[in-house]
Amino acid sequence: MPELRKDPTSGRSVMIATERGKRPTDFIQHREHAQVGFCPFCEGNEEKTPGEIMAYRRPGTERNSPGWWIRVVPNKFPALIAEGDLDRTGEGMYDMMNGLGSHEVVIENPCHEMSMGDYSVKQVEEIIWAFRDRMVALTQDERIRYVLIFKNHGREAGASLDHPHSQIISLPIVPKRVKEEVDGALEYYNFKERCVFCDIIRQERSSKKRVVLENDGFIAINPFASRFPFETWILPKHHSQNFASIEIAQVAQFAAVLRESLHRIKVVLDDPPYNFMLHTAPCNVPRQTYPHYHWHLEIMPKLTKVAGFEWGTGFYINPMPPEKAAAYLCETENWHEEQKRYTHVQT
Amino acid sequence: MPELRKDPTSGRSVMIATERGKRPTDFIQHREHAQVGFCPFCEGNEEKTPGEIMAYRRPGTERNSPGWWIRVVPNKFPALIAEGDLDRTGEGMYDMMNGLGSHEVVIENPCHEMSMGDYSVKQVEEIIWAFRDRMVALTQDERIRYVLIFKNHGREAGASLDHPHSQIISLPIVPKRVKEEVDGALEYYNFKERCVFCDIIRQERSSKKRVVLENDGFIAINPFASRFPFETWILPKHHSQNFASIEIAQVAQFAAVLRESLHRIKVVLDDPPYNFMLHTAPCNVPRQTYPHYHWHLEIMPKLTKVAGFEWGTGFYINPMPPEKAAAYLCETENWHEEQKRYTHVQT
Repeated sequence: MPELRKDPTSGRSVMIATERGKRPTDFIQHREHAQVGFCPFCEGNEEKTPGEIMAYRRPGTERNSPGWWIRVVPNKFPALIAEGDLDRTGEGMYDMMNGLGSHEVVIENPCHEMSMGDYSVKQVEEIIWAFRDRMVALTQDERIRYVLIFKNHGREAGASLDHPHSQIISLPIVPKRVKEEVDGALEYYNFKERCVFCDIIRQERSSKKRVVLENDGFIAINPFASRFPFETWILPKHHSQNFASIEIAQVAQFAAVLRESLHRIKVVLDDPPYNFMLHTAPCNVPRQTYPHYHWHLEIMPKLTKVAGFEWGTGFYINPMPPEKAAAYLCETENWHEEQKRYTHVQT
Repeated sequence: MPELRKDPTSGRSVMIATERGKRPTDFIQHREHAQVGFCPFCEGNEEKTPGEIMAYRRPGTERNSPGWWIRVVPNKFPALIAEGDLDRTGEGMYDMMNGLGSHEVVIENPCHEMSMGDYSVKQVEEIIWAFRDRMVALTQDERIRYVLIFKNHGREAGASLDHPHSQIISLPIVPKRVKEEVDGALEYYNFKERCVFCDIIRQERSSKKRVVLENDGFIAINPFASRFPFETWILPKHHSQNFASIEIAQVAQFAAVLRESLHRIKVVLDDPPYNFMLHTAPCNVPRQTYPHYHWHLEIMPKLTKVAGFEWGTGFYINPMPPEKAAAYLCETENWHEEQKRYTHVQT
């Protein structure tokens, strides 16, 4: 019997097809070809991007030259622009304002070929520090209400360049879904006097059915109402509304769980396209605080095509129960062995 | 300067990049190959689908045999099932129920090759009658809260078979986005004592900037806060909450505008993949009425890849201002001539 599950944070409904019994290999699709030719993000091509905003680089090396291991540059085709006023205005019944904000690219690695699931934990730590440093800087601008950190990996997930990179957008508004999630968490908090994300962590650690991995600071789960096969959330175990307030010890813990989650997704699903997005509290909103909110990161492998009604309704059909997805992601090591055995039999 | 526009019905924000000056040809992408081989929806293969629920067919022809021009059958792999109880239950803090409902396929044409933009207006009328008849029948089941009529055209838009078809899903819940839109319209109604969709029609007819076409009964516009390039909404000019109450004269008017809109999208964008979805009021919800709501159909050509932050935020970046999109769709005839001239110069 298919199950209609409700996500406790946002209230969205997901139809989980529990019976079809799909395996990870059923989701592996033909991938689009990689780009060929010149890459502006590779080491040595620094002059081909707009001038760097920030870089972590070896002492003695110059701005916009080799020697970096993380480099943050403006997006060459930004969706928003930094200068001017918000200039709220109308056109008849409609409301609009200028597209004020910023759009930055975090080049995660001088090397073109690697992806985040292959990095050392140390390299992922450095990326998290870059995210944190930029978020702290961008929220200084009081016109900014939300800083969005996300990654598109693979053409099918919207990446236009193959070189590993993430993106940071700062916005003069709180986006609708963010507001919904924050409001949903507040509703739960008002009703229960508890954080809904803390409750999720507690329940998942107790049932163990959907836990992918955890360490002292962070847990990775496949959420109860997963919209997509192998959707994975990473949450700090310690309640915290704001990613920017992450502590030194937590950065290493977060890096370890993020790197291992992406690595397992890569192994089990043959390097699928995916998106991740960091969900954190809004900033600079007058008269608003978010003690009821709990920051986290959501990874969405892009394995199925999203059809018309999913756009129109926010109602999803997921052919892979999260319990099974978590089991596959937990068994990566066994899976490795199995693959080897399979290859052996074949040859 | 990019513009941040707000959709007055749902409150979602869209960044419209007004400056890039893209043309329709910039959005035309490589399409996936068509399927080859056997098609269960073609005339003569009726026994390869589950038994028909309804068909419009020539007098004297038998059920599940040739002679039909519209045929409605159960989806062979339904996302929901018709038997059993809702059986609302919990798993710890989580809520779930059985996936009760139905999932039907409307085979729009015995012929494999055509698509809705190529049909006669008469054939589109028949499809609309089929939608209406099934909606009336499905809402008789008091457990059903929403009937979702939609179409995926092209592989990239989620169609798994090329033969022209639409789908109808009935659900025991009101999906989240539908509820948001209905609630957004109520909020506007409470504030203004007017229907937000009627106001949109009035403003668009007066400014003319985003009108694609209209007849006495229906209007097609590219909405002010279009999420996607060439997003097109078709609305009845006469206020009505419920598609199922469409009148005979209106069916012909709706068919003419729907067919012509899809035809122009096909011509201007070289038969792009698209989704459409019919937005109508929920049904059988205890103590609820929807006089403030206004049914309509939304067409979303799938020309850009939806990236991570759009999933996570409900905030969209659209590189094609709807004013320009509407101008291209209005000039289809000129565009035709231009194409011919261009071809002439080439040869």
